[in-house]
Amino acid sequence: MVESWVFGGNDPEIGRGLNHLPFTAFVDEETGARRLGVGIGACVLDLTAAAEVLPERVRDVVKLSRLNEFMSLGTESWSELRVALQFLLGRENRDRRVLEAALRPVRVLRLELAAEVGDYTDFYASRDHAMRVGELFRPEKPLLENYDWVPIGYHGRASSLVASETEVQRPWGQQWAGNRPVFQPTAKLDYELELGFYVGLGNPMGTPVSVADAEARIFGVSLLNDWSARDIQAWEYQPLGPFLGKSFCTSVSPWITPLAALEGMRCEPVKHMGGTLEYLAESAGRGYSIELQVRLSTAKSRAAGGSEFVMSNGNCGGLFWTVAQMVAHHTSSGCNLRAGDLLGTGTVSGPGRVRAGCLLELTRNGMEPIVLPNGERRTFLEDGDEVVFSGFASASEGMPMRFGECRGRVCEAVHGF
Amino acid sequence: MVESWVFGGNDPEIGRGLNHLPFTAFVDEETGARRLGVGIGACVLDLTAAAEVLPERVRDVVKLSRLNEFMSLGTESWSELRVALQFLLGRENRDRRVLEAALRPVRVLRLELAAEVGDYTDFYASRDHAMRVGELFRPEKPLLENYDWVPIGYHGRASSLVASETEVQRPWGQQWAGNRPVFQPTAKLDYELELGFYVGLGNPMGTPVSVADAEARIFGVSLLNDWSARDIQAWEYQPLGPFLGKSFCTSVSPWITPLAALEGMRCEPVKHMGGTLEYLAESAGRGYSIELQVRLSTAKSRAAGGSEFVMSNGNCGGLFWTVAQMVAHHTSSGCNLRAGDLLGTGTVSGPGRVRAGCLLELTRNGMEPIVLPNGERRTFLEDGDEVVFSGFASASEGMPMRFGECRGRVCEAVHGF
Repeated sequence: MVESWVFGGNDPEIGRGLNHLPFTAFVDEETGARRLGVGIGACVLDLTAAAEVLPERVRDVVKLSRLNEFMSLGTESWSELRVALQFLLGRENRDRRVLEAALRPVRVLRLELAAEVGDYTDFYASRDHAMRVGELFRPEKPLLENYDWVPIGYHGRASSLVASETEVQRPWGQQWAGNRPVFQPTAKLDYELELGFYVGLGNPMGTPVSVADAEARIFGVSLLNDWSARDIQAWEYQPLGPFLGKSFCTSVSPWITPLAALEGMRCEPVKHMGGTLEYLAESAGRGYSIELQVRLSTAKSRAAGGSEFVMSNGNCGGLFWTVAQMVAHHTSSGCNLRAGDLLGTGTVSGPGRVRAGCLLELTRNGMEPIVLPNGERRTFLEDGDEVVFSGFASASEGMPMRFGECRGRVCEAVHGF
Repeated sequence: MVESWVFGGNDPEIGRGLNHLPFTAFVDEETGARRLGVGIGACVLDLTAAAEVLPERVRDVVKLSRLNEFMSLGTESWSELRVALQFLLGRENRDRRVLEAALRPVRVLRLELAAEVGDYTDFYASRDHAMRVGELFRPEKPLLENYDWVPIGYHGRASSLVASETEVQRPWGQQWAGNRPVFQPTAKLDYELELGFYVGLGNPMGTPVSVADAEARIFGVSLLNDWSARDIQAWEYQPLGPFLGKSFCTSVSPWITPLAALEGMRCEPVKHMGGTLEYLAESAGRGYSIELQVRLSTAKSRAAGGSEFVMSNGNCGGLFWTVAQMVAHHTSSGCNLRAGDLLGTGTVSGPGRVRAGCLLELTRNGMEPIVLPNGERRTFLEDGDEVVFSGFASASEGMPMRFGECRGRVCEAVHGF
């Protein structure tokens, strides 16, 4: 891969080189309009301002205020834009006038979610997570009989998806208090470390997508925090699943890493020892190896100089189901996916509690508090706590890629009644 | 209420008088554009064509292709349009030129869903339904402990909402076959008789809506069929709730009856003998009495001359939770609702199996087949079966109201793999 002429474009600490080129959206300060952009080094290329030098068939859609229309064009168009940008932003391109005028420093922009999400589905693809959560609530039978066969998932709430850095208000809700329910702010606010895959090319209703065809329909991936109120969730979830314990807020990074950028990060999917139904059979190399990290800062740690404490490290290569299997399962009933739909992996946990992607696992539902390096103890999140997810992927050669962070700070419960 | 001058406008068999005025959308044959309309008698008033004589503050939004923007204006604007239409379409109005040109016969139009649904939530508000389903699967404890306290609900799939008369393709899916799962077309396809309430005025994230304020945010109501594949659902639903067993298709009537039209149909909400948490406390007269009916025709019955057999009659006045309680609960965590969001009641069943709103209850999960008047037996739906929901409401005086039907015919499973 050639180097970029853009400031910071070859900096491994930024991790947005020519091999990455993540999409985002931002608000243009002058007009107040939402615009689409692509990240390169310390800058965002304003696609509206650069449109005249971009390939003709994407020129109109990249000027829209949301990414859905571009996403729906499919891999050929995605690839055409990607190849064009790699040339235009690379050192060999000498005609930089339009591009230079279209570059904006990231640090002055307020980034937003680039796609409008029609439906948000959340899976449960980490077997380690499912197992450890099961041990807490059903010690006699931690993993339900369906887990190894069905990519378990549920419909999440699309309206409450927010961009990273949006404050997360501690939700009120019903909880069981031993002999009767009470309505009060959650005392068990948790994060869930996830990846969110965006559907690009949708499928018409009644037309399933095979595992083999599924990946080509995925546009890209972002870090996602599926904030959860464990006490609300525990009391409400039978028999129809999680509802208000999840739907109050889901944070998503405003940066979408194109799936094409992850070609070099492929790894073997997890072997299903008990077998797999034919419609879910997976091929070699369809997992992705991405290093993930959860960090936490507290009001106290920030006041003392700003430390972020590492809570856990993980890797999504160990998920029990690949994104292709999720798409094949989701559409196997004929259910239609649309451009911009978001598929969460569910909490990404690895073997061993140190690789747990949520506090429910790390503190065993609050029974075993953890002690932070500054001496504070945590069972669940407290007001002022800020949770940061980061992701890192690197192939044998070329620039490492750093995913757009997903960051959210908890603020106190407010009630309007 | 004065009479209407429009053809069929005073016909109780049509049930779309001046006191009703349901909203819909249709495709304009000449331009191919979607337009909004209001039903009166045997006609639809094309709101775009009639806009010049409508109140100024709604004139622009009723010309849009979807109802969401009008919905988001709130009760004052809804009421202003309603009062204006009641005058314009009433006998006392002599200036009918523009309106006459804007009326189109219903029978030549293809009706569509008027609103774009961002999120679709489905509740479980019939205690009789929850009890009878519970008796099938947990005879020792039919009703879970949370039922009487929590308006149980889950997020449904918005992408697969379709208008009445769309064919319903029998879905494939995983089912448990006794010692291993199999992937095959569902053998337990069911309907669920529901009402779907549309949110009009939404609430910002973090700002709950009280029970007292909730009703003013509801725009209107349609009949809804939450098609369910019971074998797929039974195998997949633990621990995160129904997913593919529901998301393959949900049919909705293209007619939205304004909540304002139901003022005369109010009834007492169901008493909660065990108590209610303060944030869900309900006031007098906030239930609605609407008569509902499920009919079925089969390929054989239609070939023999077209009979539709009555499967059950019901009334949504007996629901355990009112729509105001559903809204208050849904937003109690701070979750935001948006204009056009749809809240399903869950299956509307009454006391006694004859009032059951789905086959799961009527045939006790297929264990007790029912015999149709033409001799055919049914446990669940067969290919060619057509399910029709109708609704009827009448106050002590004035025209009865007939809800827009929700109709869907089952067609055979097709698999693309």
